[in-house]
Amino acid sequence: MDTLIFNAKIITMDNEETVIDHGYIRFNHTEIVTIRSGDPSAQEKEATSVINANGKWLMPGLVNTHGHPGMSLLRGINDDQPLQDWLEQSIWPNERQFDSQTLKVARDISMIEMIESGTTSFVDMYHLGLPAFAEEIEKVGLRATLMRSVIGLCSKEEQDEKLAESLAFATSYRGAGNGRIQTMLAPHAPYTCPPDYIERIVEAARNEHLPVHMHLAETRKEIHDYMDQHGMHPLELLEERRLLEGTDWLFAHCVHMYEQHFELIQKHGAMISHNPMSNLKLGSGVAQVASMLKHDIPVSLGTDSVASNNHLDLFEQMRFAVLLQRGVNEQADLVTTYEGLQMATVNGAKALFQKNVGALVEGYEADFIMLSPHQAHFLPEENLVSHLVFSAKGTDVTDMYVQGKPLYENKSFTTMDKEKVLFEAKRHIQTKKG
Amino acid sequence: MDTLIFNAKIITMDNEETVIDHGYIRFNHTEIVTIRSGDPSAQEKEATSVINANGKWLMPGLVNTHGHPGMSLLRGINDDQPLQDWLEQSIWPNERQFDSQTLKVARDISMIEMIESGTTSFVDMYHLGLPAFAEEIEKVGLRATLMRSVIGLCSKEEQDEKLAESLAFATSYRGAGNGRIQTMLAPHAPYTCPPDYIERIVEAARNEHLPVHMHLAETRKEIHDYMDQHGMHPLELLEERRLLEGTDWLFAHCVHMYEQHFELIQKHGAMISHNPMSNLKLGSGVAQVASMLKHDIPVSLGTDSVASNNHLDLFEQMRFAVLLQRGVNEQADLVTTYEGLQMATVNGAKALFQKNVGALVEGYEADFIMLSPHQAHFLPEENLVSHLVFSAKGTDVTDMYVQGKPLYENKSFTTMDKEKVLFEAKRHIQTKKG
Repeated sequence: MDTLIFNAKIITMDNEETVIDHGYIRFNHTEIVTIRSGDPSAQEKEATSVINANGKWLMPGLVNTHGHPGMSLLRGINDDQPLQDWLEQSIWPNERQFDSQTLKVARDISMIEMIESGTTSFVDMYHLGLPAFAEEIEKVGLRATLMRSVIGLCSKEEQDEKLAESLAFATSYRGAGNGRIQTMLAPHAPYTCPPDYIERIVEAARNEHLPVHMHLAETRKEIHDYMDQHGMHPLELLEERRLLEGTDWLFAHCVHMYEQHFELIQKHGAMISHNPMSNLKLGSGVAQVASMLKHDIPVSLGTDSVASNNHLDLFEQMRFAVLLQRGVNEQADLVTTYEGLQMATVNGAKALFQKNVGALVEGYEADFIMLSPHQAHFLPEENLVSHLVFSAKGTDVTDMYVQGKPLYENKSFTTMDKEKVLFEAKRHIQTKKG
Repeated sequence: MDTLIFNAKIITMDNEETVIDHGYIRFNHTEIVTIRSGDPSAQEKEATSVINANGKWLMPGLVNTHGHPGMSLLRGINDDQPLQDWLEQSIWPNERQFDSQTLKVARDISMIEMIESGTTSFVDMYHLGLPAFAEEIEKVGLRATLMRSVIGLCSKEEQDEKLAESLAFATSYRGAGNGRIQTMLAPHAPYTCPPDYIERIVEAARNEHLPVHMHLAETRKEIHDYMDQHGMHPLELLEERRLLEGTDWLFAHCVHMYEQHFELIQKHGAMISHNPMSNLKLGSGVAQVASMLKHDIPVSLGTDSVASNNHLDLFEQMRFAVLLQRGVNEQADLVTTYEGLQMATVNGAKALFQKNVGALVEGYEADFIMLSPHQAHFLPEENLVSHLVFSAKGTDVTDMYVQGKPLYENKSFTTMDKEKVLFEAKRHIQTKKG
């Protein structure tokens, strides 16, 4: 049976940038059937489950293209350390204590946070416990792109073992959950994976038609060290070895990259996940998003883990992405409001090489959220696109549907038990401390 | 009768940076009587109104040291214009249409936003309708520092008239609302007030023991033009004319200032309101907050108006203030988490030259807020200071007290009618359009 939601303001994010002031959306168990201005006819209202949106704002679900949800319990660990000390003294020793319950609890918290703040689709790049997470996500109903990331600073045998594990996970789970779960391969970074290993991973990805995700050019030091060792920027090395072509790349961060690199990215149709808050907090710098957009690269947004952010609200991430470019370049009309909204929606879908999500268009999958317009910070209501980018918070989200199924209705979870998740998380934290 | 709130985590922001893991606060109709760790005795619970905080986080109310609440209805007006066009084509023509109802509605919306997001004390620098606003604030119960700002690009007679109006307002209303309302004088900016006029205003302020608030060094162009005209930076001109000494100055923005200027600021005990989001959005740049803090300047935070921000949530402002310094200077340990919290609380009180607010200390006025810790984005709960700076949202605020009086209890307004304010605002917007 179809569902019909009427009396909504609809921000479609379609190619014509259509905003429907008063309209309705009808969808079946997966995809959007009708999306129109005005009121539905009596006939359309028959044979469907009918919901009055009462003027809520309805828009595509947000897409988070880089993160590590398994690290949630490291939120707020020694935020004031310089980067290397923070990793060596705070993050890594803690990660070594993780067990399967730590991961489950951390990922449940992340899913609660994402649903509450409007993220319908997210990336998990991590080295631990991916199959269990995939099965959990299937139950919860979110859309996710998962990968077992690999670090290659080890013997050839170990490298091969890790790659085999990544491939086995990627090929077994892609398409799970009625297609909501997709997979990638993921060499961790150029400075943790020797070029030959990256080459083997890319070949495997090509054979299996899998995209590849990698951290790239996050810090200045990393680039300096790489230039010392290899005589060129890591992206240039990928180009020299012909690893960019014929491969669906998604690079995270891309802070220390310049015009010639954006030309390479554009030429090969590679994608970028911009993580502005993490890049600021870890002292990495400010990625040149305005230049990326000038090169027609559909920049998308990632939160990174909450150890370096420290929350998963993509509305705020959007705001940082737009405002940083204007401030750092001292130009008030650089990166438009609408481009901000695109980064968090349609561009996110493009970054994950998904063709039928990220916008509200007939035939696309029904992934969307609703926000309550009844807020002091949303006045005057007519400027709603501006408010979504410059004033909205995750907490304004009241409803979420993924593939036509409700996960969040009037701020109530339908597939998760928030109280139980918080209780289990607190108990686990106590147990670990005790 | 005193009020006692127990079973709270208390972030005092006192000089010892005390955080009480489980404690209580007792206050009378204005000030804090007791603040302690542990549970109150049976005797302490007698003769008081007793509230169980159920583990909520209790902290000083946030202080917004620069804003223009009367401009709320301009939120989201043509966000993508370059600064000068935006002012000339969007802001000023709209402001000329303002009537007393526009101002009332706009300021009511601002107060709703501030109470909902934890701001107990704010600045209004504006040229219209201050007396009516002062009377409204008295009823609502917030703490405010108000001033009729003046632009001096006019005849001497007009200048004198404006100054007289400012002085009359400042001297009549200071101390109103049981001392909650304070006043300042406010030359708009060095580029809109000739040096002689600023001098007359400063003299008047000295005579009446009033502080002086002014926009300073917001854009690069403004400084270039000023150097062309006067041969020096506007702060240097104030120093040359001996206008910094013996005056309580609060400068907003201070984006284009360097080491020698921070030395002058420090020498004369002047205060700074840092407005990171507005400075980014208008393409003004990034103020050198890390350098200001190294000069022991107690940097405070302002939102500026929602036409250039576009919301009044100081938690997010705090995050921008800390993260920007780390990212732009590429140093992860620059500006500590705790300094972020100080900027929004104790430093705000210092910026307004108020000695008994901004921290929770016995004898200080009872201005505080409570936040619900029961949030996925606040786990693990032990890192609460980190969460307040890097993860909290205004919407986590559940309660607000100003001078011992509740303005917001479990997310309900006690002195304002939110539904009515939103209704009146929407009606006014419709009327103006029609």
